[in-house]
Amino acid sequence: MSLLVVGSVAFDTVKTSHGVAEEVLGGSATYCAYAASLFTPVWLVSPVGEDMPARHLEDMQRRRIDTTGVRIVKGGKTFRWAGRYSDDFLERTTEQVDLNVFEDYDTTIPEAYRGAEYVFLANGAPEAQRAVLEQLPGRKLAFLDTMDHWITGSREELLGVMKMVDGLVLNDEEARLLTGESNLLTAARRITAMGPRIVVVKKGEHGAILIEDGRPFVLPARLTETVVDPTGAGDCFGGGMIGYVAQTGETSVAALKRGVLYGTVIASFCIEDFSLNRLKAISLDDVEQRREEFLAMISWG
Amino acid sequence: MSLLVVGSVAFDTVKTSHGVAEEVLGGSATYCAYAASLFTPVWLVSPVGEDMPARHLEDMQRRRIDTTGVRIVKGGKTFRWAGRYSDDFLERTTEQVDLNVFEDYDTTIPEAYRGAEYVFLANGAPEAQRAVLEQLPGRKLAFLDTMDHWITGSREELLGVMKMVDGLVLNDEEARLLTGESNLLTAARRITAMGPRIVVVKKGEHGAILIEDGRPFVLPARLTETVVDPTGAGDCFGGGMIGYVAQTGETSVAALKRGVLYGTVIASFCIEDFSLNRLKAISLDDVEQRREEFLAMISWG
Repeated sequence: MSLLVVGSVAFDTVKTSHGVAEEVLGGSATYCAYAASLFTPVWLVSPVGEDMPARHLEDMQRRRIDTTGVRIVKGGKTFRWAGRYSDDFLERTTEQVDLNVFEDYDTTIPEAYRGAEYVFLANGAPEAQRAVLEQLPGRKLAFLDTMDHWITGSREELLGVMKMVDGLVLNDEEARLLTGESNLLTAARRITAMGPRIVVVKKGEHGAILIEDGRPFVLPARLTETVVDPTGAGDCFGGGMIGYVAQTGETSVAALKRGVLYGTVIASFCIEDFSLNRLKAISLDDVEQRREEFLAMISWG
Repeated sequence: MSLLVVGSVAFDTVKTSHGVAEEVLGGSATYCAYAASLFTPVWLVSPVGEDMPARHLEDMQRRRIDTTGVRIVKGGKTFRWAGRYSDDFLERTTEQVDLNVFEDYDTTIPEAYRGAEYVFLANGAPEAQRAVLEQLPGRKLAFLDTMDHWITGSREELLGVMKMVDGLVLNDEEARLLTGESNLLTAARRITAMGPRIVVVKKGEHGAILIEDGRPFVLPARLTETVVDPTGAGDCFGGGMIGYVAQTGETSVAALKRGVLYGTVIASFCIEDFSLNRLKAISLDDVEQRREEFLAMISWG
């Protein structure tokens, strides 16, 4: 089934104990689209600057990511993010954010994408997310991702767009920030009372929680010793989840739980290298193989 | 099968957002024994002072905890611990520790207990743990719990006793402290290279990891909104695990994984009230019912 991903395509500069990656491809929608494209074709909408090399978009097209919706803004510069991780990866510090063309962009959805049934609004301004949703009357399942910047800076707009979607994806700190509640189960349940029937809380190395109709589903993350760069792992999780579900054509909680499983597995690849390097190198066979290995890790039978 | 639990029986003073419990029954061996006794009779060895009311020991006996090994030290005072939790339960501060009779006690194991096949050495001095193990030549499965105090203060003694046991139980911070390694999988694997073939890392609200022969098993914790006092949850986890395994008579990893599942469930009861209050009130039926509910929470099928 058709899947539309909207969000940022960016250049990241990342420092970890494994080295520095300068001006490498990143962005919430990029990670999300690459993860989802393992399961299904993806329509990608994002603004980029004239500094975006054509090869990045060509790479996407080879992975059945349609880039018709990636608009090159004349005279514009692509979104930049710079950050570093502590040696133990438990802390992340943002060193620079230049929204550039992502600050206020044309959210017109190409005519060909307007029939999208599955929608993932990767991290971005709630106003833009709303504008996108209003152009997609036929959506069957829409998910929204967000971050602290919008929770504190555009709270009312975020609360508004939350009422338009089926699901919200956010991390544990963001869930606490949004609700003022430290208990994650309470926080997640409160969020479902704010609009979305499904809430997925990402806990990084501790896994994820999905809540639907007050009922929680919990999945640990895959234990690994190989962490090179965690950037984009949360977006890969979301992209893997929605990509799998879009492929099934379902909107059930059972399908979403299996999606969380796939999202977890794909995020575990993402962190093994800088940028999209690892994600570009894997196939669905690799995903299935690691899924089996992960299932063995969480089975007590 | 016979199960011997050795460690502290204590009085705790605990402050949480739900109130203050003063001089209530606590101690690593107490929590562990109550949890294990849901599955199998327990032989308990611990020193207490003359200030220990007989009713506490009578309560234990009614729960098939044999207290022949609980020695009342003449003129002695029982171990005291005082601490408080932050409102979100993410931080614990120890306000007072008075080891009293637990500082240096007679570790002679009663003759009747020396044939113990299953042994859980709850938190205590490594020297005492070693002295106990030396009196138990017929043990089939011995687990050791420890804490930061011994890891930093009695490191050599701890490393020695770790070579005498089958398994080590410790929390994530302790695993990092013991190995100097922040990655938990790496830390746990290093610990198995130090002696015990099994390492169980407790991550509190994030669940637990069991490593055997380098292979990890991961289980999330049960999500709950009802947290009154987390004291003793880790000891209940260990007690539930070893109690279940002792009942089966097995020593296999498969049995231990099921034990981790039961330990998780029993710990989830422990935190619902102060002291041993909740644990005293539940039966194995309650445990089985919550186990089913927990399995539903972690099943994606």
